[in-house]
Amino acid sequence: MTDSWLQAPAAKPSTAHRDAALARQAQLTKPPGSLGLLEAAAVELAALQGVDAPSADRVHIAIFAGDHGVAAEKVSAFPQEVTAQMVANFAAGGAAISVLARELGARFSVVDVGTVEPIPGLPGVTDRRVAAGTANLAAGPAMSHEQLLRALDAGREQVDSALAAGCDLFIGGEMGIANTTAATALGCALTGGDLALMTGPGTGLDSNGVRHKMEVLARSLTLNTEARAAPLTSLQAFGGFEIAALTGAYLHAAQRGLPVVVDGFICTAAALAAARILPGARAWMLFSHQSQEPGHQALLEALDAEPLLDLAMRLGEGSGAATAVPLLRLACALHNGMHTFADAGVSDTG
Amino acid sequence: MTDSWLQAPAAKPSTAHRDAALARQAQLTKPPGSLGLLEAAAVELAALQGVDAPSADRVHIAIFAGDHGVAAEKVSAFPQEVTAQMVANFAAGGAAISVLARELGARFSVVDVGTVEPIPGLPGVTDRRVAAGTANLAAGPAMSHEQLLRALDAGREQVDSALAAGCDLFIGGEMGIANTTAATALGCALTGGDLALMTGPGTGLDSNGVRHKMEVLARSLTLNTEARAAPLTSLQAFGGFEIAALTGAYLHAAQRGLPVVVDGFICTAAALAAARILPGARAWMLFSHQSQEPGHQALLEALDAEPLLDLAMRLGEGSGAATAVPLLRLACALHNGMHTFADAGVSDTG
Repeated sequence: MTDSWLQAPAAKPSTAHRDAALARQAQLTKPPGSLGLLEAAAVELAALQGVDAPSADRVHIAIFAGDHGVAAEKVSAFPQEVTAQMVANFAAGGAAISVLARELGARFSVVDVGTVEPIPGLPGVTDRRVAAGTANLAAGPAMSHEQLLRALDAGREQVDSALAAGCDLFIGGEMGIANTTAATALGCALTGGDLALMTGPGTGLDSNGVRHKMEVLARSLTLNTEARAAPLTSLQAFGGFEIAALTGAYLHAAQRGLPVVVDGFICTAAALAAARILPGARAWMLFSHQSQEPGHQALLEALDAEPLLDLAMRLGEGSGAATAVPLLRLACALHNGMHTFADAGVSDTG
Repeated sequence: MTDSWLQAPAAKPSTAHRDAALARQAQLTKPPGSLGLLEAAAVELAALQGVDAPSADRVHIAIFAGDHGVAAEKVSAFPQEVTAQMVANFAAGGAAISVLARELGARFSVVDVGTVEPIPGLPGVTDRRVAAGTANLAAGPAMSHEQLLRALDAGREQVDSALAAGCDLFIGGEMGIANTTAATALGCALTGGDLALMTGPGTGLDSNGVRHKMEVLARSLTLNTEARAAPLTSLQAFGGFEIAALTGAYLHAAQRGLPVVVDGFICTAAALAAARILPGARAWMLFSHQSQEPGHQALLEALDAEPLLDLAMRLGEGSGAATAVPLLRLACALHNGMHTFADAGVSDTG
């Protein structure tokens, strides 16, 4: 497994197209700034896509699924077999993200990067299994360096597939029982944030469960102290495979100049790792929603990110990012389709 | 002009369908509550539409445009002729709400309830002119009782048109230079709120402009003290025709059982008037977005309303309500299309 692609630099957004988009927004028939974040999103997409008329029509959604050794510590409200069951549900069209992908007319790809139970050749599921789940992050590093590279590469590959299909936007999602534990460890390692503030209920722990999860996390962070030094080492120490795949996707999207819409807590931890690994990667990220998971806010702040939505969602699967897509489409339609004061013969501010 | 329709009671949402929708949400393949406000919206629409499978597909958008005598007090950043110019822009497809209506595939109706300059028979504009603008609310009541009834009736008529076309949702929007002044006066009268907290920049006043607007409003509220006694009297005192038309629409939508999506500051003032006039009207309102106009929060609190979006928008025209429609559509698609734990063979919480 080569890691040479990791050395490529990030692409640069087009400042000329950003300036042109800002100038156009100032001429549209509305008080300046009155479309708020919709204006900002259209301008950002114009700069990232290097076009006058930005688009969010063609979307690639890739869901990465993997299991976590730390599930043995009973840090989740759901049993571990749910990871593989949900992969089958994604493929069958019954999960939230399946419904959302269908509604958006998005390309939809499910990638098994390492569930505990191998999934017998389900149609629509790509086999990029690194191992049958990670090792327990509370007993040592979650994965080897070789495994890290294979997981990153699974993400890279999805970005290349999106670009080959001419997509405007990339969305990554994840499934993995116990992965809020991995993301919390990674987030604490990357930000130096307070474990007590960062640890949350995930899919539905009660307060005893959250306290126990925090004890497991404290053990892991003590054990892997040296992992805080470098973001790739942190990813290897805490995992999971699906989080590393997301990081690989965000890195390669920045290298190839494809805008990504980042989902909630787990995706934002992966995005923060990417931003720390590759200078200029942050510029290619739009942030979709504020999750209910308490650690999300700290990760968003570390990325200086203001998400579009705050719908009290906490599902994962890329569901928050998919939900933001119609707003990006409306932002583009407004930017591209509204008339200017001059077109419309409307008087500007008096 | 008869006002007998105003006496009809509000329809009642279906508690049986609400309970069934809540039960279904609990069985869908996701942690309970993890779709946040999208779950709540789907359940609400099921109760309001009295169906198992709610829909936000067929939307009627009606924009009411009218002028305000108080514009003579120089309380807006834009000249008064912009009201009629924007009506032409709505009809020509160049305004924000025109673009949004097109993207949503919505029915789109523009109603002139009284601009200063009559608009020569534009295609797509319905003439329901009450007068060439209201009287100056800082010098007396904005309109007569007869004018109030005609404006309310223009709103009623749009709801009947939406229902005749089989629509699932009604959105009202407005255009009227100086109408944040009218809405602020109405909001203060209905809530007893503090004028200093309720008065904002509208389409773009500077701090001197806001101070002057507040002086004009203080004069109007002192002059019309008795108008605070009854919501219909407040509407008559402060106007405008487009605000009264929105109130008429919200009243009749509640009477006929058609859910409405309420836009920002001005529409929320009209919605609060409707809720005060007709017991049970509040139940038919979904709230789309938190506007940047500072008084909006107080009006939302008076209605115990939690809007879906906070995108720093402050345009009006129904633009925030239209922007929320795709989220309602996704909420319905998730509710109707996701598989249950039993369907999918996925284990529930362990």
